[in-house]
Amino acid sequence: MKHQDLIFSNDVASHLDALVEKYNPSKLFILVDKNTRELVLPILVNESKTASNASVITIEAGDTNKNIESLMLIWSQLVEGGATRKSMLINLGGGVVTDIGGFAGATFKRGIRFVNIPTTLLSAVDAAVGGKTGINFHGFKNEIGAFCEAEAVIISTRFLSTLSNEELLSGYAEMLKHGLISNVDTYNRLIAQDVTNIDAEQMLLLLQESVLVKKHIVEEDPTEKGIRRALNLGHTAGHAFESLALHRKSPIPHGYAVAWGLVVELVLSHMQLKFPSNELSRLATYIYENYGAFHITCDDYPSLIEFMRHDKKNDSANEINFTMLKNVGDIHIDCIATEEDIKTALDIYRDFMHI
Amino acid sequence: MKHQDLIFSNDVASHLDALVEKYNPSKLFILVDKNTRELVLPILVNESKTASNASVITIEAGDTNKNIESLMLIWSQLVEGGATRKSMLINLGGGVVTDIGGFAGATFKRGIRFVNIPTTLLSAVDAAVGGKTGINFHGFKNEIGAFCEAEAVIISTRFLSTLSNEELLSGYAEMLKHGLISNVDTYNRLIAQDVTNIDAEQMLLLLQESVLVKKHIVEEDPTEKGIRRALNLGHTAGHAFESLALHRKSPIPHGYAVAWGLVVELVLSHMQLKFPSNELSRLATYIYENYGAFHITCDDYPSLIEFMRHDKKNDSANEINFTMLKNVGDIHIDCIATEEDIKTALDIYRDFMHI
Repeated sequence: MKHQDLIFSNDVASHLDALVEKYNPSKLFILVDKNTRELVLPILVNESKTASNASVITIEAGDTNKNIESLMLIWSQLVEGGATRKSMLINLGGGVVTDIGGFAGATFKRGIRFVNIPTTLLSAVDAAVGGKTGINFHGFKNEIGAFCEAEAVIISTRFLSTLSNEELLSGYAEMLKHGLISNVDTYNRLIAQDVTNIDAEQMLLLLQESVLVKKHIVEEDPTEKGIRRALNLGHTAGHAFESLALHRKSPIPHGYAVAWGLVVELVLSHMQLKFPSNELSRLATYIYENYGAFHITCDDYPSLIEFMRHDKKNDSANEINFTMLKNVGDIHIDCIATEEDIKTALDIYRDFMHI
Repeated sequence: MKHQDLIFSNDVASHLDALVEKYNPSKLFILVDKNTRELVLPILVNESKTASNASVITIEAGDTNKNIESLMLIWSQLVEGGATRKSMLINLGGGVVTDIGGFAGATFKRGIRFVNIPTTLLSAVDAAVGGKTGINFHGFKNEIGAFCEAEAVIISTRFLSTLSNEELLSGYAEMLKHGLISNVDTYNRLIAQDVTNIDAEQMLLLLQESVLVKKHIVEEDPTEKGIRRALNLGHTAGHAFESLALHRKSPIPHGYAVAWGLVVELVLSHMQLKFPSNELSRLATYIYENYGAFHITCDDYPSLIEFMRHDKKNDSANEINFTMLKNVGDIHIDCIATEEDIKTALDIYRDFMHI
């Protein structure tokens, strides 16, 4: 895997200027969505020498726009803006911008340099690092994409004040996941916090700890042949919740889906690997109190199981693959659960969520 | 770079069956265009145990169909056919099929295994090996794509009898290029042949020698940061001829464009690096006798230079980059030519081509 500059700092503009000086791109492009164009780009343009000279490419905000049309718009504007192989693309935004911008960068002229500047907690802790890029296709999330690392990622808490509590909580769910797959100390630090009341400096420290958990796993297994699947904890059930919500035409934030997915998958971990019931109960309570509940009935089980079956993580169409834990930090990848087990776990999830 | 099985054999079906047994894909897909579906697929289905059970995906033939619409059709049919990350795609066709099929394989669920079975001389000697995949976009050739090696390539002369002399000559131009960048012996063997009268066994030997020239260069520099640019000999001028022909609405075969491009670029090599004039004249004569001439007047020079300027190989939009030779096998990459030099070279090209 190529070396990646991972920069933790709230002085985003200076670091961006230094990267542009280092790589000396033939042309500089900044990808934003309509939200970050309004709320974040002006700050950067004001503070950075290089950002003010860049060509700006704008896409619509939201996961429904992480699609082939937005991708083609980016490619077209790169062509029309005279981008060469030595040009550089700055992805300034949340997960949608870093995922699609990363894929555009990975494929334009078979690959140009790109830098991620995540502006949401979720993208800082998850999407911006690790090289998974892509778009949704045919109703499936991230169905098309590539593994391609950003040249650099500038991680800050600088722009978190532009976020709602919902967006903060959404990102925090991935941090909880990183805690669960690392060690008890990290996990305890996280679960002790009131997310909506952390100061920026404290958050930058927690964020750095969390991103480094992910970075070390990705370095061991960049293309997810093995241990990288640890990062999928909560995501098989979580993606199914997300797909069901989309199907109901009332989408839920990714991190919320992961939070609820963590509960389901730790129930499965308890059933199959005896994950301690007190830890399970502590997490479920934290999730319920902070995230509320995603409402399902047993009538939803067949659709949820069907969505899980379509997950990229399955090696064959007949098995449903999960990452499970025997304890905090004790990871078991490639666990298979039967439909019966999953139904039981969904029953217990509903008990925890008071549904 | 990952290991790639490079198989030279006319027993294509057995090798395909062995690969399927080795990788045991969850599902097998074969990508063809309308020509190879009619002329080549029946042979393979008849001889191979595995090909007959595969799902067939068909795209329109021809370079104008190496586009985003065909790519989306392939992605869709993979989704609808229930492809998982452990599925495998067989690209059975010429350069269009291996380029677009390779890109589809590189990006579906962030990458599934694919195998190339080139059916034209051009794709056998060029497109199918080396990991350059992609599509044309916004009027530019291969503007979008990825570097991604096929798991295996089965190279044969088995299907060459389905080709016209024009298609044979088109492929042979890339073989001549491989001769020029390797050594005098290889080059002399190639330029001594009457292409349209070589028997299949002799051709398989020449083909193997030629593909190995490319393979060794690609192994040294898979993503074209340096020596891989040797393979671009003839291609800066060649692509410009190809684009001009497209613009005139009378497309020319890629290999013909390369043949004429080789003449232009060896003229430049003679001007800048004193490439021997007797070798230049021998090549120009061979090209003229076998390929005829691509007609241009000095009125076409500005468009040709503009096309060269847009070439992916240029690091900046202001310079035009060429690979040149000081002698057969003595490669100089990253040579810059001025507009005046290029115009002079085009004048001399026209003299050689009796225009």
